[in-house]
Amino acid sequence: MVGKEHVLTDPQLRAGYERDWTGRFGSDALAVVRPGTVEQVAAVVALCAREGVAIVPQGGNTGLVGGSVPRGGEVVLSLRRLRELGPVDATAGQVEVGAGVTLHELQEHARAAGMEFGMDMASRGSATVGGMIATNAGGSQVMRYGSMCDQVLGVEAVLGSGQVIQRLSGLPKDNAGYDLVGLLAGSEGTLGVVTRARLRVVPRPRYRAVALLGFASVEGALEALAATRAAISSLLSADVFFREGMELVCAHLGSERPFTAAAQAYLLLEAASTHDVAPDLFHVLDRVPGVLGSAAATEPRDRQRLWAYRERHTEAINAAGIPHKLDIAVPPGAVAAFERELRALLAAEAPEARLFLFGHLAEGNFHVNIIGLPPEDERVDGLVLELVARHGGTISSEHGVGIAKARWLPLVRSEADIAAMAAVKRALDPALVLNPGVILGPLDRPA
Amino acid sequence: MVGKEHVLTDPQLRAGYERDWTGRFGSDALAVVRPGTVEQVAAVVALCAREGVAIVPQGGNTGLVGGSVPRGGEVVLSLRRLRELGPVDATAGQVEVGAGVTLHELQEHARAAGMEFGMDMASRGSATVGGMIATNAGGSQVMRYGSMCDQVLGVEAVLGSGQVIQRLSGLPKDNAGYDLVGLLAGSEGTLGVVTRARLRVVPRPRYRAVALLGFASVEGALEALAATRAAISSLLSADVFFREGMELVCAHLGSERPFTAAAQAYLLLEAASTHDVAPDLFHVLDRVPGVLGSAAATEPRDRQRLWAYRERHTEAINAAGIPHKLDIAVPPGAVAAFERELRALLAAEAPEARLFLFGHLAEGNFHVNIIGLPPEDERVDGLVLELVARHGGTISSEHGVGIAKARWLPLVRSEADIAAMAAVKRALDPALVLNPGVILGPLDRPA
Repeated sequence: MVGKEHVLTDPQLRAGYERDWTGRFGSDALAVVRPGTVEQVAAVVALCAREGVAIVPQGGNTGLVGGSVPRGGEVVLSLRRLRELGPVDATAGQVEVGAGVTLHELQEHARAAGMEFGMDMASRGSATVGGMIATNAGGSQVMRYGSMCDQVLGVEAVLGSGQVIQRLSGLPKDNAGYDLVGLLAGSEGTLGVVTRARLRVVPRPRYRAVALLGFASVEGALEALAATRAAISSLLSADVFFREGMELVCAHLGSERPFTAAAQAYLLLEAASTHDVAPDLFHVLDRVPGVLGSAAATEPRDRQRLWAYRERHTEAINAAGIPHKLDIAVPPGAVAAFERELRALLAAEAPEARLFLFGHLAEGNFHVNIIGLPPEDERVDGLVLELVARHGGTISSEHGVGIAKARWLPLVRSEADIAAMAAVKRALDPALVLNPGVILGPLDRPA
Repeated sequence: MVGKEHVLTDPQLRAGYERDWTGRFGSDALAVVRPGTVEQVAAVVALCAREGVAIVPQGGNTGLVGGSVPRGGEVVLSLRRLRELGPVDATAGQVEVGAGVTLHELQEHARAAGMEFGMDMASRGSATVGGMIATNAGGSQVMRYGSMCDQVLGVEAVLGSGQVIQRLSGLPKDNAGYDLVGLLAGSEGTLGVVTRARLRVVPRPRYRAVALLGFASVEGALEALAATRAAISSLLSADVFFREGMELVCAHLGSERPFTAAAQAYLLLEAASTHDVAPDLFHVLDRVPGVLGSAAATEPRDRQRLWAYRERHTEAINAAGIPHKLDIAVPPGAVAAFERELRALLAAEAPEARLFLFGHLAEGNFHVNIIGLPPEDERVDGLVLELVARHGGTISSEHGVGIAKARWLPLVRSEADIAAMAAVKRALDPALVLNPGVILGPLDRPA
């Protein structure tokens, strides 16, 4: 169906597809299949549905919740060969691309046409459009442009039945039936396999300014963010991290801290606009109370240097140990209390563990990284997620539920809600072959 | 379950719920049931599902596609008693309200807290939040704030099974499972009954400016819109209408035209911001080519007077006859050709008919109103919708499919897409009691 050279059964060739880079998830695949067209994807899915062979769809394999690597014996369906880049329609603000296009390729493609794709994140070199839709990816610019689902104007996808649905008209307003496009976004490959997408692109901001501020606590960062948001409509991102992370990253990179004052919480702000935003941003920041130290940049290289303190967190943490990673969010009003209680919880339950916390402050979204826990022992993970739920938060803000968190879904979704999701799953993937176990855990196979 | 006084069986009491105000749709209901709580809604739905009695959910009964009035023998489930108005959280930009709250009540409630609800439309006094979610309503401000689905942060809803799902946390980013909230938006009461919603509110723009411009053709209006959008980020709405509509409205209201020059196409622009937008808007408009005549306003009363030329279209048309109404959209690039071909089509196929066209230009969305066709003869409607489909458009842009357009859904949705929608319908409403016939037409009842 896909050509012999695109069915990988040799363990050495399969290896790169079988394990994610956290090192925590992965197993042997039956085979890795690399279709080159939507017709081939449909044929493979239909065959697997007929034969009852489970499929794990995979994009750039940058997932962190075990949702894109085999659990044992599945077919890994790699979409990376679907790399078509359609022309950028600057007037409509739209572009159509294949699911295997990486975020970085998409960004460069939009920029070449004087436009911008409204999302960014550290995994841009590997993360693919299909994977970003499947997980409804977030990243650093959600405050300004929304999540991946907000960029998706249409998709082509293969449902679990092997049927191909296609909605690529790009109409800004189309109420002819259920929003299956929105339903696929964030469904983590359990309902359908996205093969192509029509995406929103936005006018390219020509001016950018970045500021890194240090505070005595996260409350200071929250106040600074609120004041800046109220004054500057061009704010693009507001990332937060903490003293331990700054120290780890500096040690890992062998670099200096951005300013000498010791801070407990760091806020990294970026503004971007078609006009020069730096004076406005720096003017506002000059008046923010409680700033212990700050650094600012407008030139690409200097901005990059400030961003590195945040973006190199993941690799610095991975170099220090295999982390337990939890991507959570709490309501913005609960951020400070949650951070305090989380530290207290770890001090009491796992005093030997090291906590690294970073994320997107406007959405109350923290990436909780804990080093020093036994790799397979999820007791502390469960306690953290229970704390999140008590604060009205979610166990997955932007990474998805995957395999990793399926058992905790009832913390934040009611029995009725989970039953409704399972009913939708059975409706669109009646043979239950698409990414089984992800989100909903094991479901009874059809007779 | 709901109290005897809230079960209306007397034909006189039922009458207001049984017919929509287009006069084209409606029939006898078995009864009108008016629950006052979500528990009562759930009990009624569960009972009907058990007994196989069809339900037509109804909000303000302002629908135009026959989706909220009985087709004969259904229970009309009126949600108008669910009128709770929660406190406006200005920091988070959120408010939680009952499904029966009208758009006007919601607008006033947000304004009292210094905020604004980001939608507006002529039916604001009757249209309810629940109905607006069910139909994914649009209106005049979609260009700025998006459709109803973009305002909905969470819902409480009763599924066809009688199960209550509730997602009201208001988290800006929550990827724990399928987006059932988005799935319900635009599902026209066929999957679940929305009982409550958490909605986005935005900072209130204190300054507004309106301009009405006349052009020799819709091409002129399109060029003016593109030039204004590029220069003014505070543009709120861009409605379009035509010579015949202007003449009809003026005759109906006994009012003067806004300017003496005779125009073929009119563009009504509104800008709104926290700063004074009038100088910017009028400066840009002074440079737009092809303007045959214009009128501008900043004071509420004057703005209202200009808006009346657009908003009184519907009542003026209804006074002139029972219209065939089609709410469609074509890609923005196809607007001019579509308008030309639509006029040619009517001249050829129904020379005695009168066409009134108005809508939201940025989304390529036209409300096609045709007077003088036999009320029950849908031949011309079909030809118009086929023309829409040939231009890559949709048979429903913001009103929904309802009963009225179910037979034409295959013009814009593939067999696979419709099969997927039917599968989702059966998953969430297994007894097929929720608004049967709407969107998908008749489905086989379960054995």
